Amino acid sequence: MKIVCIGSGNVATHMAGEFKKKGHDLIQVWSRNSAHAEVLASSLASMAMTDLAEIDLNADLYLIAIKDNAISSVVRALGDVNGLVVHTSGATSIAELDRFSSHGVLYPLQTFSKAKAVDFKDIPLCIEATDADSLDKLRTIAAELSKLVYEVDSDKREILHLSAVFACNFVNHMYNLGAQVLRSHDLDFEMLRPLIMETAMKVQTEMPVNVQTGPAVRDDEQTILKHLELLESSPHLKEIYQTLSESIKKSN
Amino acid sequence: MKIVCIGSGNVATHMAGEFKKKGHDLIQVWSRNSAHAEVLASSLASMAMTDLAEIDLNADLYLIAIKDNAISSVVRALGDVNGLVVHTSGATSIAELDRFSSHGVLYPLQTFSKAKAVDFKDIPLCIEATDADSLDKLRTIAAELSKLVYEVDSDKREILHLSAVFACNFVNHMYNLGAQVLRSHDLDFEMLRPLIMETAMKVQTEMPVNVQTGPAVRDDEQTILKHLELLESSPHLKEIYQTLSESIKKSN
Repeated sequence: MKIVCIGSGNVATHMAGEFKKKGHDLIQVWSRNSAHAEVLASSLASMAMTDLAEIDLNADLYLIAIKDNAISSVVRALGDVNGLVVHTSGATSIAELDRFSSHGVLYPLQTFSKAKAVDFKDIPLCIEATDADSLDKLRTIAAELSKLVYEVDSDKREILHLSAVFACNFVNHMYNLGAQVLRSHDLDFEMLRPLIMETAMKVQTEMPVNVQTGPAVRDDEQTILKHLELLESSPHLKEIYQTLSESIKKSN
Repeated sequence: MKIVCIGSGNVATHMAGEFKKKGHDLIQVWSRNSAHAEVLASSLASMAMTDLAEIDLNADLYLIAIKDNAISSVVRALGDVNGLVVHTSGATSIAELDRFSSHGVLYPLQTFSKAKAVDFKDIPLCIEATDADSLDKLRTIAAELSKLVYEVDSDKREILHLSAVFACNFVNHMYNLGAQVLRSHDLDFEMLRPLIMETAMKVQTEMPVNVQTGPAVRDDEQTILKHLELLESSPHLKEIYQTLSESIKKSN
């Protein structure tokens, strides 16, 4: 396939790189920021550009991997392209791409860092299209990248995205609060890392509700009170400790 | 070493098993529950018992790995033993073992499930003793089990334990809330598992504050409002979403 990559962030970098690895031709890389476009284009042996008017109209795939709130303006500015146009956003409806005859969504449910390689085969890819031909194409494209392909409509994709805020964004914040507790007593976050890995490993085969541990789930009021006392000087952490302990008691 | 294992739960099972693997002699396993004592004792080629009065007074190591609130009564009931007596609790002071001439703490900062093997070498072991001789012994014992040995006093161990509530117990609860969001829309928790692993992997080399992602940290009010709307029928989840989003904004 001839592919145009619109965007130069984490998702664009990883997805375009993966298409390149699979032998596809990344003919153009667009970014608002010309330096970013150059960096990604050169790693893909592609051409960098910052003007959407220069985008080739006859590619097979247009991959829009940019910030959610930039999608509608890019869609308006893009010419009448002939290939399949997809965005990669969890929170954006497929309807945003309505003006293209062939369009769809290719949403990777994963967190990317530019510097860190991930194994694409294990990334859940959520696809959606409104016509059978585009859906067929997307199925083929997604199956080439990953062994975990799900057909998910825009409403459910929004729910997935919401659940990921709990299971990824809020989880990382819990790591951060743990690090704050340690730092305030000159203890090293390093000590928590094995526990963090094991906690994530456990739910790879079990449902979280079945492996909940800690003072709240065993109604250990003595330890909870001791912890609240230790947090006396951090009212913010204390409030979160109380809210989440109550929530665990309600859920388990 | 001749070792007496007092307790038959997850921690007792994993630690006693590891001592056995290293070639030590598990001479007795005590538990209030005779069936539990039998199961563990038979896997260790040891002797099960339920009466603390029968505990051998001349072992080298007494490993007290039982529920926090059971430690003081077991300590009172135990005879005047001659070896090193340690407990494995994060939240219990070393002072609870004062009546034994040689005593200390050997706290593994990890979450254990009976059925799941863990690599002991990578488990942080926190040790504490009040006299130099016991500390020396504990250093040797801990170094035989793990490459991650830390000397941590009772006050700091309590802080570690508190930080683990955030980084493990509350994290697992976030997984559970993510699963609840999915289930209410007939989506499979399976889809979140790769994201959960990657989120834990990221903080193995980075500090959590540097890899925070999601709508709250990028001040994406539009997505936050959309998510709160989706949670309208779950006031409990909505409250947690709001509290943690505010907390992320304050912390980052």
